[in-house]
Formats: sequence, C-alpha cells, structure tokens
Amino acid sequence: MAEGGAKGGAVDQSAQPATAQRIVDAARSLMIERDLLEVSIADISERAGTNVALVSYYFGNREGLMIAIVEGDARRAAGHLDRLLAADMTPTAKMERHIRGMIEAYFDRPYLNRLLHKLLREASPQASAKVGASFVRPVTEARRAMIADGVARGEFRAVDADLVSFAIDGACAHLFSSEQSRRTVLGDGSLDHNLIDRYVVTVTDLIVGGLLAR
Amino acid sequence: MAEGGAKGGAVDQSAQPATAQRIVDAARSLMIERDLLEVSIADISERAGTNVALVSYYFGNREGLMIAIVEGDARRAAGHLDRLLAADMTPTAKMERHIRGMIEAYFDRPYLNRLLHKLLREASPQASAKVGASFVRPVTEARRAMIADGVARGEFRAVDADLVSFAIDGACAHLFSSEQSRRTVLGDGSLDHNLIDRYVVTVTDLIVGGLLAR
Repeated sequence: MAEGGAKGGAVDQSAQPATAQRIVDAARSLMIERDLLEVSIADISERAGTNVALVSYYFGNREGLMIAIVEGDARRAAGHLDRLLAADMTPTAKMERHIRGMIEAYFDRPYLNRLLHKLLREASPQASAKVGASFVRPVTEARRAMIADGVARGEFRAVDADLVSFAIDGACAHLFSSEQSRRTVLGDGSLDHNLIDRYVVTVTDLIVGGLLAR
Repeated sequence: MAEGGAKGGAVDQSAQPATAQRIVDAARSLMIERDLLEVSIADISERAGTNVALVSYYFGNREGLMIAIVEGDARRAAGHLDRLLAADMTPTAKMERHIRGMIEAYFDRPYLNRLLHKLLREASPQASAKVGASFVRPVTEARRAMIADGVARGEFRAVDADLVSFAIDGACAHLFSSEQSRRTVLGDGSLDHNLIDRYVVTVTDLIVGGLLAR
C-alpha cells in the first residue's frame, strides 16, 4: 500500500522515503491508540524510532505531517473508489458498497473524521485547500459519476449530486461525532463492530432508498 | 421568547435576569458577526453594556456562558418540536418541516453546529452531558415519536429510529461543516438563501424518500 506522504504530497513511491512513511505510520497509530489528534511530535518521533528534526525535514511542521496523513488516507480511499467505479455492479450496489466503505474507514481510523474537519476549518488556507483537493474532490467526483450512472440507468431519481454528496458525508460521519452524542442517544458511548454494522445498514437503506427512482 | 440561560440552566423566566439575557444575546450576535466561537469575554461584556465580572457572576466561566447559549437555542428548538408534534399533519409532512427547521436554524445561527460539537467533544464531562441532555435528547425523542407515528400509520418503513436520527443530524449539518468543503464541491464557499433552499429540498427528498414504506 502506497500510503503516507512526502513533501508536496507526491504520489510517486520513490519520493516517500521509508523514514517519512514510518513517521506517518507512527503518528496514525498513536492518534488511534490515544483517541486524540494532539499527539506530541516527540512521542511520534520516538515511536517511529527517528528524531524530531526529521519531522521538520520531511513535513515542514505539524500541519505538514497532518496533511501527509490525510493524503495517505485520501490515496487509499481514491484507490477503493477507482476499483468500485470500474466494477461490474449496478449503481445501487456501488453506492451501498461506498457507504459501507466510508463508515468502516471512520471506524478503523477514528482520527480521520476529526482531522479532516480540523484541517478543513482551521488550517492555513493552502493546507485546507490541499485537503479539499486530495480528499473531498475525488470522493465528490466518484459520487457524481455513480449517481449520474444510476440516473442514466433509471435506478436513481435526478438529484443535485453535489448537495446529495454533502448529505451522504454527514450521514456517514455523524455517528463518530462524539461519545457524548452516542451516550445520550444510544445509552452507550462505545463503538463496536455490531453497532457499525447496524449503522451501515441504516444509512445504506436510508440513502439508497432516498435515491431510488419511485 | 424565553431564551438565554441562567446558572443551572433553569427554564424559569424569573431566574433569567435581563443582564444575563443581554450577555447571552451579545455573545450570540458577536459569534454570528465574526463567524467565530472565540469571541473574548471583554468584547461580549462591552457589547452587552455590562462588565466582565458579571459574566462570572451569572455563568461561572466561559464554558458556562457557552452552555447557556446552547440551552437557549435548545429551548427554542424544543418549543418548535413540541408544536410540530402536536400539529395536525402527517408524519411525512412533520419530518419535512423538521428537516427544514434544522437546516434553517444552522443557517440563522452559524455558530450553533460548531458550538454543539465543541461542547459535546471538548467540554468538561458535566458540561457535555448537559448539552446532551438539553439539546440532543429532546431532538432525538421528538424524532422517535415522529418516526413511530409514521411507522404506525404505514407511511414509514420500520427503522432503527436512533440510528436514523444520527444520519438525519449529520445530513442536515454537513453543508455547514466548512467553507473549504463548499468551495471544493460547489465552487463557492458562501451560504445564501438560495443554496439553503436547495439543500432543504435535497435533504428532505433524500431522507423522507429513504424513510417511506415501499
């Protein structure tokens, strides 16, 4: 898997030295273990078995490292989406698979939802534009294609695909928004495979049901 | 309108002195004008025509003031929802009206989505539990009633109302998640009445369509 990013977010494997990749992996695993975005660069360097100066060398600063993490995740998501779009399946089945993939990605990478939000909202304009281009745009374009295909085949209603895309994103992500919301609504704040599977079924039925031509 | 909160979040009007209400109103209008949660207590006090010490007196600290703002908004939302539930309308029409109300509330009070998230995620456990109880719970309960009614009348499919509730929340809120997302997807980051109306139609058709018995 060609994950992890180097300066400039190049996709070229050769531009991603093993050390940079180790730093990205270390940051990702520490954010997951601690359920926290604010892991110190010192801790990340220690976990990666490298030194703090190499983080600046490869990523410039903390924001650069966070962007590299998101770009790695974005490449992974784009790979999944490319294969899904090319697959011999109905648009309905593709949309179901896509919704499952999104929800499972948020479950497997619990930092992702918050990190995307943080970078899109609070990072420098250049950084947030980069996250928009590397993550938001490919996902939106894949959905446009999936929806257009569904409309062309008569499976889906004619919808505003871009606005539907916001609704899909929000619906998939919201279970992960806060432990307190889950505790208030579900009486339990914890996420487990069983809950995730039920959420996949609920969101898929709701969204695909809402897209279907009636 | 009995908005604004006093210590303890009492609903009793007499417990909400005019000064406390002025501070809440000032904070709300400054957050809207500046599109920022981090308005200083000094600026809020100045706008309210009061002094900084009264903020501590009425709200304890900044978090207390922020909770009072959310509790005021929650009382307003609960009032709307009570009237909606009591209205002589089909569950389908109620759900449409509810979705419109949520999206318009996020548009009119642009701080609300972010403030809810911030308090639910980052505030003290007591504070986040308070936000859960005052905002998340009444909305969830109203939706449970609306959905149960729709299922009983044969308008809606049998669904997991609590998980559907997360999907609805996320779908309504996500257009407001970041200017960068809007710029990336829509080519324009700004929110206006026209976009909001289109989003209301899109989300309503998607969610209600997804709930309908087929």
